[in-house]
Amino acid sequence: MPLKYYIHDGPFELECGGVLPELTIAYHTYGHFTGDNAVWVCHALTANSDVADWWPHTVEAGRFLDPAHRFVVCANIIGSHYGTTGPLHINPATGDAWYGGFPFVTIRDMARAHLLLARHLGVERVQAAIGSSIGGFQALEMALLAPEFVGRLVLIATSAKTSPWCIAFNESQRMAIEADATWDERAPDAGRAGMMTARSIGLLSYRGSSGYNATQAERDGEEGRMEDFRAASYQRYQGEKLARRYNAYSYHLITRAFDSHNVGRGRGDVERVLATVSCPTLVVGITTDIIFPVEEQRFLCDRIHGARLEILESEFGHDGFLVEHDKLNTIIKPFIEKK
Amino acid sequence: MPLKYYIHDGPFELECGGVLPELTIAYHTYGHFTGDNAVWVCHALTANSDVADWWPHTVEAGRFLDPAHRFVVCANIIGSHYGTTGPLHINPATGDAWYGGFPFVTIRDMARAHLLLARHLGVERVQAAIGSSIGGFQALEMALLAPEFVGRLVLIATSAKTSPWCIAFNESQRMAIEADATWDERAPDAGRAGMMTARSIGLLSYRGSSGYNATQAERDGEEGRMEDFRAASYQRYQGEKLARRYNAYSYHLITRAFDSHNVGRGRGDVERVLATVSCPTLVVGITTDIIFPVEEQRFLCDRIHGARLEILESEFGHDGFLVEHDKLNTIIKPFIEKK
Repeated sequence: MPLKYYIHDGPFELECGGVLPELTIAYHTYGHFTGDNAVWVCHALTANSDVADWWPHTVEAGRFLDPAHRFVVCANIIGSHYGTTGPLHINPATGDAWYGGFPFVTIRDMARAHLLLARHLGVERVQAAIGSSIGGFQALEMALLAPEFVGRLVLIATSAKTSPWCIAFNESQRMAIEADATWDERAPDAGRAGMMTARSIGLLSYRGSSGYNATQAERDGEEGRMEDFRAASYQRYQGEKLARRYNAYSYHLITRAFDSHNVGRGRGDVERVLATVSCPTLVVGITTDIIFPVEEQRFLCDRIHGARLEILESEFGHDGFLVEHDKLNTIIKPFIEKK
Repeated sequence: MPLKYYIHDGPFELECGGVLPELTIAYHTYGHFTGDNAVWVCHALTANSDVADWWPHTVEAGRFLDPAHRFVVCANIIGSHYGTTGPLHINPATGDAWYGGFPFVTIRDMARAHLLLARHLGVERVQAAIGSSIGGFQALEMALLAPEFVGRLVLIATSAKTSPWCIAFNESQRMAIEADATWDERAPDAGRAGMMTARSIGLLSYRGSSGYNATQAERDGEEGRMEDFRAASYQRYQGEKLARRYNAYSYHLITRAFDSHNVGRGRGDVERVLATVSCPTLVVGITTDIIFPVEEQRFLCDRIHGARLEILESEFGHDGFLVEHDKLNTIIKPFIEKK
């Protein structure tokens, strides 16, 4: 599917008080809109709007995002590397790229921007809004910002408010980027080496103990070695892979948005705010997820009226939401299709 | 207690095939040796030989390291910043400091060096060898290298072999150090900014989700903030604190020794090697330890003949071994004193 763009008419005010003079939103759609078949997918940290690319076996026949039956929309988040207005774009006020001068954005800003795209597309209500990780943050914010828009809510491996534990992980990643001597440079590849480390830190949180031990153990015959272990090469390989496809300014900015997530901010107590979610809600947790432990999904489920909790058995940790597509389909498809 | 030094007569051969032309071991002792009252404590990653300094309420009256009854020895590990031969020491072959040229050392090298110190001190057998984390690696290696030396073995929050998960954590820390542009400099503070990040990564593994959420949550009245969270300041503060007291060359070197730990290397199957441990053994795990999960202590206990497993309830993760001194004393003291 080709990437499409929506150019918002006029400036976009941000929660922090700042303003984006222009807002372009990059997005993908799959299938045809019939008026009541839209499903909105919110992507996580470094993903793009091409769901079929990053979420295997979901935008397929017989799956919960089957384009023969549904109109699937996924929009790239503000600040990202993948087309929506971000740090490598030109700041119209200066005629130069934003880089480190890009204003602070929150998850709520991202969700609000995507509701503008929905209006532009003529989608007044979606069958379901679905998100994993910080995609779940956005889906939840959509349900709070525009209850009339969200028919059902699917929250996977996510939380109501970013935990101190997540913030600590994100801060270490930002420290890694900032320790790179090139980070101050006004260039697209500033902070590249630091971001490689940052990504390797992030990976620790996505896979966890069981994920690494399941996939990165030494092979037979390599038991005698003292150095150069597979788990170490994996960290470097994954760090380099991200550095080739993503910029450090976006990464730094979006981890700060990640930290900011708190459905209670400006609205009151988190528990009472969750109690105002009025649509049928499915919450999915993953047994080995160390970064969004199942207690956080249990918390969501206990506070959202009538919400259903499904705990998915997986050894892949948080990354289970990408790997366990079969199990997810079994849970999500009937939930979305329920009359 | 004053720091003492033992200067080994002659070169020290390393497992990797390299040689240290000179070996000085820095150590502390507490109490008086009566011939059968020695307890050997092995320290973890960035600690020193002053147990009374880093392990609160252990070298005290009524505790398992009570100096009125026991002769406690703790020696600084090879490669450390705290007195034993390491990267900031002079290489006699060049007359210049070692820095990055320091040879690769393993946990087994560290244990073997400390057995030389024991001989020098006239300690032929200890009542107990005790270690937490990579201190446990050393204690276990001592029991395998010199079964006649170790009367009892206390292994806390440790394992028989470093897991891929630990190696991944350590590799991210080394990537952080290496991404620092000063890392190549032949100077004691080379890689300092990188090591701050490295330490902040290490901390994630020492505290875990429950540790951070218990100690780094925002205080009341700070629920509205979008940035500058306590958990983030904590990461920077702890990174800076380590950078003031430790050098990056030692840190980098010792994390590589950490990775190398494998009681099976050169000896055969890990399970069969553990079955050769012949002394009474106490294994302690901590419920919330994410870096050395309790399955690893269960593994040790299942393979070491007659070993006893104690699972310690704590919300402080791996750091629980430092924080929960009361609970540890209740478990360890009777075990050491058993006739």
